[in-house]
Amino acid sequence: MSEEKKIPYKIYLSEDEIPKQWYNVRADMKNKPAPLLNPGTLQPMGYEDLRPVFCDELIKQELDDTTPFIDIPEEVLDFYKMYRPAPLVRAYFLEKALGTPAKIYYKFEGNNTSGSHKLNSAIVQAYYAKKQGLKGVTTETGAGQWGTALSMASAYFGIDCKVYMVKVSYEQKPFRREVMRTYGASVTPSPSMDTEVGRKINAEHPGTTGSLGCAISEAVEVATKTEGYRYVLGSVLNQVLLHQTVIGLEAKQALEKYGETPDIIIGCAGGGSNLGGLISPFMGEKLRGEKDYRIIAVEPASCPSFTRGKFAYDFCDTGMVCPLAKMYTLGSNFIPSANHAGGLRYHGMSPILSQLYHDGYMEAVSVEQTSVFEAAQQFARVEGILPAPESSHAIRVAIDEALKCKETGEEKTILFGLTGTGYFDMVAYQKFNDGVMMDYIPTDDELQKSFEKLPKIDL
Amino acid sequence: MSEEKKIPYKIYLSEDEIPKQWYNVRADMKNKPAPLLNPGTLQPMGYEDLRPVFCDELIKQELDDTTPFIDIPEEVLDFYKMYRPAPLVRAYFLEKALGTPAKIYYKFEGNNTSGSHKLNSAIVQAYYAKKQGLKGVTTETGAGQWGTALSMASAYFGIDCKVYMVKVSYEQKPFRREVMRTYGASVTPSPSMDTEVGRKINAEHPGTTGSLGCAISEAVEVATKTEGYRYVLGSVLNQVLLHQTVIGLEAKQALEKYGETPDIIIGCAGGGSNLGGLISPFMGEKLRGEKDYRIIAVEPASCPSFTRGKFAYDFCDTGMVCPLAKMYTLGSNFIPSANHAGGLRYHGMSPILSQLYHDGYMEAVSVEQTSVFEAAQQFARVEGILPAPESSHAIRVAIDEALKCKETGEEKTILFGLTGTGYFDMVAYQKFNDGVMMDYIPTDDELQKSFEKLPKIDL
Repeated sequence: MSEEKKIPYKIYLSEDEIPKQWYNVRADMKNKPAPLLNPGTLQPMGYEDLRPVFCDELIKQELDDTTPFIDIPEEVLDFYKMYRPAPLVRAYFLEKALGTPAKIYYKFEGNNTSGSHKLNSAIVQAYYAKKQGLKGVTTETGAGQWGTALSMASAYFGIDCKVYMVKVSYEQKPFRREVMRTYGASVTPSPSMDTEVGRKINAEHPGTTGSLGCAISEAVEVATKTEGYRYVLGSVLNQVLLHQTVIGLEAKQALEKYGETPDIIIGCAGGGSNLGGLISPFMGEKLRGEKDYRIIAVEPASCPSFTRGKFAYDFCDTGMVCPLAKMYTLGSNFIPSANHAGGLRYHGMSPILSQLYHDGYMEAVSVEQTSVFEAAQQFARVEGILPAPESSHAIRVAIDEALKCKETGEEKTILFGLTGTGYFDMVAYQKFNDGVMMDYIPTDDELQKSFEKLPKIDL
Repeated sequence: MSEEKKIPYKIYLSEDEIPKQWYNVRADMKNKPAPLLNPGTLQPMGYEDLRPVFCDELIKQELDDTTPFIDIPEEVLDFYKMYRPAPLVRAYFLEKALGTPAKIYYKFEGNNTSGSHKLNSAIVQAYYAKKQGLKGVTTETGAGQWGTALSMASAYFGIDCKVYMVKVSYEQKPFRREVMRTYGASVTPSPSMDTEVGRKINAEHPGTTGSLGCAISEAVEVATKTEGYRYVLGSVLNQVLLHQTVIGLEAKQALEKYGETPDIIIGCAGGGSNLGGLISPFMGEKLRGEKDYRIIAVEPASCPSFTRGKFAYDFCDTGMVCPLAKMYTLGSNFIPSANHAGGLRYHGMSPILSQLYHDGYMEAVSVEQTSVFEAAQQFARVEGILPAPESSHAIRVAIDEALKCKETGEEKTILFGLTGTGYFDMVAYQKFNDGVMMDYIPTDDELQKSFEKLPKIDL
């Protein structure tokens, strides 16, 4: 008790302690993530190949798999101070409610208007776009956190921001849309009639409510066809995971301040940006053989790319205009069931995390959404934060692991990533509150059909 | 610059520095706020008179106008650690955008799921209800922050929570309702058919969309008629202002840490809970003649109780079942125009603040809502926080004062209260974004009509 008392509920680092460099986990990986391929030639893409799509400096970061630490620009550090360091919270209330001997910590990334960790990378990408003299950026958004984050970042640096928002989200989440507009972004429902790929998809699938893969295609087309614009992405890419390492670096530093070491590290996984950011510094130690951690990726049973996907080259988008990545994938045409709430609906997974998972450095589990919302509700009532559905996947598994400790009596230290808040997800909460939320697990047949469309590539 | 650099963007006190006592500003007031009156006998109400309505310990706090400091219970301090200390933010980005020599600070109370400062008092009231062995509490909510806060607090202490939500808000803010339900509260649109007063109001005003005063009447009726229940209120009352002094005490302590003293203190004012809590410790010094501060209450032009109301005894509710309070009031039947967005729509004002304003210790200004949303948007884009419409009233005047400093070259220090976030107010933001937001100022005739219904009391 006396020792426990020393650890506050919320560990806030000082602003001076915000990391000055990102950590590039690829530098410590023996098997590097496979290169992106040109969708036309199927050849690995270099710096020049990627320039029409991405900002120059970001391409360098995308391709750099040897430099272990990369400086965070001063202007980005200034902006980080607006909402960082993010608190590391000791979940005393949750521990008590569970009656577990485990110590539970969560790194809370929801204390900013984007409502999630997405701002960590958005501000970097907007910064490099501005520095390159660009007029603006294009992107896609599904659940809306990324679009909101990029709108905020673009407003800050005074560049234009065009968001293609998955149509079903655009219609179901008008408030997310209004937040983006308040920050000056233009928001277009996708598929739209503004782009070739949008018109094509609309013609082939009349009445479609869109998908992330389709919105990506549209945003890329607009970026490449509009003078002074580039495309930016909120997850999956190596550069994004790099930026998100501020999460893990801060968490590690805060834990070390109190002499704590996590036994288990848990994060939800959609495209992998939060998970990769959280685990990278710990994974580095594991890769270098300095320490061991149990690392668990949690994904929805309705979109199980790690646990049921193939490790293969696939298109990152539906329109097949983007580079191909080698990753765990459900196939670029896979769309999770309409009853799936929130994000974590991307068909693929970060190439870095895919390689690490393939090489046995981490585990993955899938969970069903009603059990996720049960965990969310329990967490909200004792810890006071209404969690995002995405984040609640990690909560579910953190609770499960803590309950295992209760059975075995083990005093494990659990760290999980609480990526954001659920204020814009109340339609899903309402379904849960009304007892009408459904679970959905794709059948083997469905997945098999989806896998048949995977490109046949073996490098 | 070197001196400025020392002040971080966000000043976080440590959890040990959370105040252990509330400050009771009445102890330092020469003219005490007038007592509550019994609506039947019109006589001042004592402890026993108030027991059917309020929790015992809270009545003691309500009536105590001499004890300067009152201990915060240990259990409440534990809960405070979940989301407090709240940050005091130096608005460097806003200062830069305005080009002002003024230093601007804001105390941000939105970093919790209730989205506002309301949780500071909700947890106290739920605690005393639990301690008294009650089954539950009833309350009203308009914009929804208070109802959310009380739901969270009730869930934490395991007591029941019945919320009467102004019908127009219930319908326009289904997501607020769902947050409350997620925390286990029952939410009923008001006026309902569950109460005598609700049925009466529905009969007299068919199709009415309700008002705060009417929801109060219903909540009080249910509390007094249900075994083991009491009524709790989120603003106006002396006890609420007492609890909210954690805001001002923390802000003062954080400023003193960096040798700063505010010249101007600004807060938005609806019932006065945030304003009273923010200014109390500073007002105490002013009342004791130790220091001088310019203190400004900001209210909506559409509900101008300070600037155009009468200082008189009036009913606190529409149904006239509640005690009467001496306060600045627009008349208990006054309902702000339907185009008024967000909270700050109560017809009256805290008796403590009313007395202080009457005695010349503070100023009040009213602002129109389009100018409020302009300030909100500007603030959001540079400071990264999407502010609540209520809070944005204070932002408006803080910006105006900072711009005056720009003209005069004065380096004033401005402190304002940022009470919460606007995530549930996107309907209003959408109107602003679409350029269709309207202003509304009640005419003298309208107010005159409302004043005619004031009870004729002169004590």
